[in-house]
Amino acid sequence: MGSPADVAEKADRIITMLPSSPNVLEAYTGSNGILKKVKKGSLLIDSSTIDPAVSRELANAVEKLDAVFMDAPVSGGVGAARAGNLTFMVGGMEEEFTAAQELLSCMGTNVIYCGEVGTGQAAKICNNMLLAIGMIGTAETMNLGIRLGLDPKLLAKILNMSSGRCWSSDTYNPVPGVMEGVPSSNNYQGGFGSTLMAKDLGLAQNSATNTKTPILLGSLAHQVYRMMCARGYAQKDFSSVFQFLREEEDL
Amino acid sequence: MGSPADVAEKADRIITMLPSSPNVLEAYTGSNGILKKVKKGSLLIDSSTIDPAVSRELANAVEKLDAVFMDAPVSGGVGAARAGNLTFMVGGMEEEFTAAQELLSCMGTNVIYCGEVGTGQAAKICNNMLLAIGMIGTAETMNLGIRLGLDPKLLAKILNMSSGRCWSSDTYNPVPGVMEGVPSSNNYQGGFGSTLMAKDLGLAQNSATNTKTPILLGSLAHQVYRMMCARGYAQKDFSSVFQFLREEEDL
Amino acid sequence: MGSPADVAEKADRIITMLPSSPNVLEAYTGSNGILKKVKKGSLLIDSSTIDPAVSRELANAVEKLDAVFMDAPVSGGVGAARAGNLTFMVGGMEEEFTAAQELLSCMGTNVIYCGEVGTGQAAKICNNMLLAIGMIGTAETMNLGIRLGLDPKLLAKILNMSSGRCWSSDTYNPVPGVMEGVPSSNNYQGGFGSTLMAKDLGLAQNSATNTKTPILLGSLAHQVYRMMCARGYAQKDFSSVFQFLREEEDL
Amino acid sequence: MGSPADVAEKADRIITMLPSSPNVLEAYTGSNGILKKVKKGSLLIDSSTIDPAVSRELANAVEKLDAVFMDAPVSGGVGAARAGNLTFMVGGMEEEFTAAQELLSCMGTNVIYCGEVGTGQAAKICNNMLLAIGMIGTAETMNLGIRLGLDPKLLAKILNMSSGRCWSSDTYNPVPGVMEGVPSSNNYQGGFGSTLMAKDLGLAQNSATNTKTPILLGSLAHQVYRMMCARGYAQKDFSSVFQFLREEEDL
Repeated sequence: MGSPADVAEKADRIITMLPSSPNVLEAYTGSNGILKKVKKGSLLIDSSTIDPAVSRELANAVEKLDAVFMDAPVSGGVGAARAGNLTFMVGGMEEEFTAAQELLSCMGTNVIYCGEVGTGQAAKICNNMLLAIGMIGTAETMNLGIRLGLDPKLLAKILNMSSGRCWSSDTYNPVPGVMEGVPSSNNYQGGFGSTLMAKDLGLAQNSATNTKTPILLGSLAHQVYRMMCARGYAQKDFSSVFQFLREEEDL
Repeated sequence: MGSPADVAEKADRIITMLPSSPNVLEAYTGSNGILKKVKKGSLLIDSSTIDPAVSRELANAVEKLDAVFMDAPVSGGVGAARAGNLTFMVGGMEEEFTAAQELLSCMGTNVIYCGEVGTGQAAKICNNMLLAIGMIGTAETMNLGIRLGLDPKLLAKILNMSSGRCWSSDTYNPVPGVMEGVPSSNNYQGGFGSTLMAKDLGLAQNSATNTKTPILLGSLAHQVYRMMCARGYAQKDFSSVFQFLREEEDL
Repeated sequence: MGSPADVAEKADRIITMLPSSPNVLEAYTGSNGILKKVKKGSLLIDSSTIDPAVSRELANAVEKLDAVFMDAPVSGGVGAARAGNLTFMVGGMEEEFTAAQELLSCMGTNVIYCGEVGTGQAAKICNNMLLAIGMIGTAETMNLGIRLGLDPKLLAKILNMSSGRCWSSDTYNPVPGVMEGVPSSNNYQGGFGSTLMAKDLGLAQNSATNTKTPILLGSLAHQVYRMMCARGYAQKDFSSVFQFLREEEDL
Repeated sequence: MGSPADVAEKADRIITMLPSSPNVLEAYTGSNGILKKVKKGSLLIDSSTIDPAVSRELANAVEKLDAVFMDAPVSGGVGAARAGNLTFMVGGMEEEFTAAQELLSCMGTNVIYCGEVGTGQAAKICNNMLLAIGMIGTAETMNLGIRLGLDPKLLAKILNMSSGRCWSSDTYNPVPGVMEGVPSSNNYQGGFGSTLMAKDLGLAQNSATNTKTPILLGSLAHQVYRMMCARGYAQKDFSSVFQFLREEEDL
């Protein structure tokens, strides 16, 4: 039972979760891919984070074989996975959602129906783009405030009771010492690596280009994480953008 | 009692609130300014939003006349002002804070001591920079999600239960119809005008330049509101950036 | 002789030039595409501007049929096409370049060998990305200078004798009245439309994402043209970015 | 003869050239500044690169003392200074230009009248903003092209015969080995340091904020040089942005 095709021969409910679009395409449409031996009526759920256009392409191919494909990318990270409370964002035919929900509920507290195939990916990509913007914005803001003489904890408190509040400021603050139990207080280890964020922003960028949507901040956020990956931050948590920005100017 | 100097002759606790740095400088150091006749021991509180460097400059001038200057910019908007629950961010000597607090508590629920003179401005500017970034980011994200086939209300709900959550997504959503009682559902009337946001971002930009702080997203947010002002959005609420970005490409 | 396949049956040297990657893929690999009936030893030259990855994919498919594929995008515009002095940037096997050169020399003064398949596209995309950056930069600079009190013609002269000089400042100045015979002096009609520039910047963006290359200005230039397309500038010459930026702030 | 005031007592034609606005203000309006003892009819020329608004302020102060102030910032670098062929951009009253020109011609081949006081600064700032944009754009483009398989010398040649051509690509190419005699071929030593470019971009930013001019690329270029200064590039030539961007992503 080594290949995806072997799996498809034996199981009629399959969940895949792979690093990127080419891997997913290979697993489904490759020479030993799932589609070689998928049984009629099978439910194939892909929980990878990939281009929504690839999800739609796969759904078409699967449909021709009388099986069902849904995209169901996940958010929540390693801790949520262990605790079984991941969030799944699901795209696909609405009448198949109940079956998917039943399966995914074993792993995730929240299983949300997003719309037709590809919208699960869209929701995931959108969330992560806004997350990246909020994180870089929080890092810039905290850095500026500190240089203007504000205490970081006080600044975080003020932001969090005001309109600057966001997840990155109130739940995952990027400044060491402001919060406990987050990567910034553990030398930016663990968490969600900058290279993963750069990948998701690349997907957002492609989706924006394809739909002719202007994303000024999203696009710049992508370039910031790209630079960080090139300068030694690839494996650090994405909140390390604070460290990337804060270094003092040399004289 | 027409001039600021006249006021200073009669009152020993003065609160000023003016549109920009030159106005404040004129009111204090002009030929009929407060400093011409300020009494020893007076408490001067400036609630304008201006450059922190100007606040520090004024504090120095006031101190030489044996009076006290504090900066105390305000956040909260017209509604909060009417209801008396504005937030004041106060910078100045800590031993004077109690006196300032007593005075400002009449108008604001929250009166926060931020540190030495200028840090009130710093806190205000930092909050509004992060707010602008969060708003543009939310507008880009909602626009991208809609074009990828997501329902706007559903997308907002997903963001708000996930790491993309921010004040602009959960309290002041820029997409018409997603929330009630916000400017986006009232043709972007009322609220906080784009021209005011552009002004605050100009202050953030100056402070960043002066402290040699890189603000990639903050700086781009500034340019976005600058463009909006040039293209008819000056008086609309700053959440109208969604409208600015969303127009369909013509064929 | 209606379909590409029909053409391939009769000719052994074919030049294609189509708007975008999907069109090119259809023309070559579609059900009536060139590859259905291409003869061994044929030389297929694609002068479209598309993703270099698609060019490489096609080259692989063509090679399996014992024919030769080269990418040869063109620069120069309508005027150059009429005068027969277009520039072709050619990618493909070096030993086939002479044959391609012979063919393309009928249409273009300059036929440049760039390297393996896809490098013709790479050269075209790179040039246009730098062109877009230079044009927006020139527009911003001229606009700033004019607002600071400089005469536009004088400013252009100073830039052009200094280190600010670029093709957009000295050959295609975007400010009406500075130069004659360019689109800016003809209400931005003719020339190279903003929508075409947005398309090429989308290709640059994809190539940068695929190669993990940070392109901060290139990416922002892409977003600027994307916004312009959404705001009525799609069919105007790409130098109309000056007009897009210059409008006065309303009071 | 230690202080500026001493100089003003003895000379009636004075040229100043100082690092930044505060230095210039001190030299003119300080307690031992030029204005303390300037003689009527003196010609004061400031060749510093500073905020045009400061130049105008000084011109007003000088005029009240019946002397003449002109701003005349310089471009060309160390080599040009030694060879006596600097370029001066002069702002001030037109009827005084001949006198200034006579003086400055000893040091500079080109002495250009730009308009009223401050326009010399404006021209200098505008040129350097476009230069920074062109340099970063060239660095991004060369980096992208190299990663797409192009030879750097060939790519530079293609850009320089096409519309991507700019001073940074054809005279001062940032890629080591493409040209001789430029800082990129000497480990980015000599030339114009990134910290000086960051300073000039800060002036451009301030001028743009003051005139409400959107400068999307100029503003981002500012942030890029700001980051470079924070990461060890402050003293390297500004073309080292290529090196800053090119580092390979670690795996």
